Amino acid sequence: VLLSIRWKDGVLEIIDQTKLPWEYEVLKLTNCRQVAEAIRCLKVRGAPAIGVAAAYGVVLGVWDIEDESLVDARMLEVIAILRATRPTAVNLFWALERMQQVYETNRGKRLDEVKRSLLQEAHCIFKEDIEANKQIGRYGAGLIEDGDVILTHCNAGALATAGYGTALGVIRAAWNSKKRIKVLVNETRPLLQGSRLTAWELQQENIPFEIITDSAAGFLMQQGEINKVIVGADRIAANGDVANKIGTYSLAVLAYYHGIPFYVAAPTSTIDHSLKKGEQIPIEMRSPEEVTRIYGLQIAPSEAPAKNPAFDITPHQLITAIITEKGVLKPEDVICVK
Amino acid sequence: VLLSIRWKDGVLEIIDQTKLPWEYEVLKLTNCRQVAEAIRCLKVRGAPAIGVAAAYGVVLGVWDIEDESLVDARMLEVIAILRATRPTAVNLFWALERMQQVYETNRGKRLDEVKRSLLQEAHCIFKEDIEANKQIGRYGAGLIEDGDVILTHCNAGALATAGYGTALGVIRAAWNSKKRIKVLVNETRPLLQGSRLTAWELQQENIPFEIITDSAAGFLMQQGEINKVIVGADRIAANGDVANKIGTYSLAVLAYYHGIPFYVAAPTSTIDHSLKKGEQIPIEMRSPEEVTRIYGLQIAPSEAPAKNPAFDITPHQLITAIITEKGVLKPEDVICVK
Repeated sequence: VLLSIRWKDGVLEIIDQTKLPWEYEVLKLTNCRQVAEAIRCLKVRGAPAIGVAAAYGVVLGVWDIEDESLVDARMLEVIAILRATRPTAVNLFWALERMQQVYETNRGKRLDEVKRSLLQEAHCIFKEDIEANKQIGRYGAGLIEDGDVILTHCNAGALATAGYGTALGVIRAAWNSKKRIKVLVNETRPLLQGSRLTAWELQQENIPFEIITDSAAGFLMQQGEINKVIVGADRIAANGDVANKIGTYSLAVLAYYHGIPFYVAAPTSTIDHSLKKGEQIPIEMRSPEEVTRIYGLQIAPSEAPAKNPAFDITPHQLITAIITEKGVLKPEDVICVK
Repeated sequence: VLLSIRWKDGVLEIIDQTKLPWEYEVLKLTNCRQVAEAIRCLKVRGAPAIGVAAAYGVVLGVWDIEDESLVDARMLEVIAILRATRPTAVNLFWALERMQQVYETNRGKRLDEVKRSLLQEAHCIFKEDIEANKQIGRYGAGLIEDGDVILTHCNAGALATAGYGTALGVIRAAWNSKKRIKVLVNETRPLLQGSRLTAWELQQENIPFEIITDSAAGFLMQQGEINKVIVGADRIAANGDVANKIGTYSLAVLAYYHGIPFYVAAPTSTIDHSLKKGEQIPIEMRSPEEVTRIYGLQIAPSEAPAKNPAFDITPHQLITAIITEKGVLKPEDVICVK
């Protein structure tokens, strides 16, 4: 199984996702600031993977402390540093919250015990994520029919999670249960997570796929060449509205217009019960240079202005179902998930 | 005025559009095969510009002939070469048809007279296109309101025509009549005609604009940040269905869903009365490498397959109006245009 994140003897190993598909490079992170930087620069990305990495980031943040009296302040600092990395994926805040609570519970115990309890919690978050993905895969595979052509956007695969993947987990599970499927991969401008990462994962497993530009999806739906759309999620509001990679909303409207089922696959850790509606989810605006440059090549006149929202909000009305580890839910029913 | 194509003393000068915005290079074409190659490689592109270039290509094709008995065969050959360059834009076939007819009319006359009549016809096509664009601009500007934010796709500007532009002609005319507008420019993957060419044209005229990725358009419509969509056309069927750059159809569906007017700006030479419906328009499939590579940089795993339709069809039901030099038409009314 491909693991995007691995803890090994006090070191957090991550696959540098900015280097794929050109190089497979494993980074060894040894302190919290390196983890924060890796999240900010998208070396590790995807909502569940960000949550897992942040949990281990907390562990690394206190790992070197030898004086008990410093732990309280360090925990505050470490959590603040990690919180400030990216605003949209809720799994980040959810994982930090879990780490914080474990810390509260074990506060005052011996330092090595505190550290051990934090590491144990990070391991839990890691394992639970893989288990959730496999369960999502099992539930989701039941929705896929033999012969389906499935469109996906961005990367909601093993790389975006602790392993296995959400949207790609469903595709993996369907493929492994011998359904003959094909995947259409939106390249996903500006950062090309589709053509760089999703294509790479599918190629490794020999699942048939074709890359398309993001703007070809509508035409292929019109031509009857797409049966289902499955995407991941960065945050789900209590009413079932979904924040996900920019372009997801356009796909949802197009799928609705063509009568094509539109599925979101995500663990329940992606649900943010504190937000009633999707419009309350903060949308990260990233550098215009991600639009005007591609890997160092300027593709627009110099000084040309650009706008670069990294996510969009898909209202629950456009979502056929949300596939979670607790079952296939109507978007309106995520509010009942504990 | 920016002219993408210019005839000068037996030489066809074109701006090499594959080099923009990095270099402004004028190519001097002296024979028909060079013109065909320039069209095939998108050094000159945009339906009206292809038509104009092809007309001059016919002139160059017979320019060197000194023996009258060779002209008939050469005309056949030259027209066949130019016809085979690109399949979707009808202006190519329309312009070749006009050149053919002028040749038939003047057949048997003195060789220099035949050449002169062909050159005169090419000049006519050139001038008529600029006049048509200016008229399209005047009609279209009446549809633009002060404060509008207008989304456009690909490049339907001076570069795509003999000069002035169709969709950008409307924007130019509105701007010149002192309407405060802003243009959102879809980058237009795979060949980035939006960020490379449209942004370049708008920057030259100081018209405010921002580049966005193609998949951000839906989100910005949802946010109320787009008032109108204006695009060009490569071919219009008799029922008003429009073939245009891949991604146009998605925009039309999104505009319809959000209640935003969707305009097509094109000269009547883009109407193909021989085709009843859009689905009869041939869609050019281009190399998968345009998707998996960007200017030499591989952006997908090697051997990753891709699909690359260059155009799509927007059904007339999704089009608010077609702005032509003969007026602003309902799509169903193009059938009446002579």
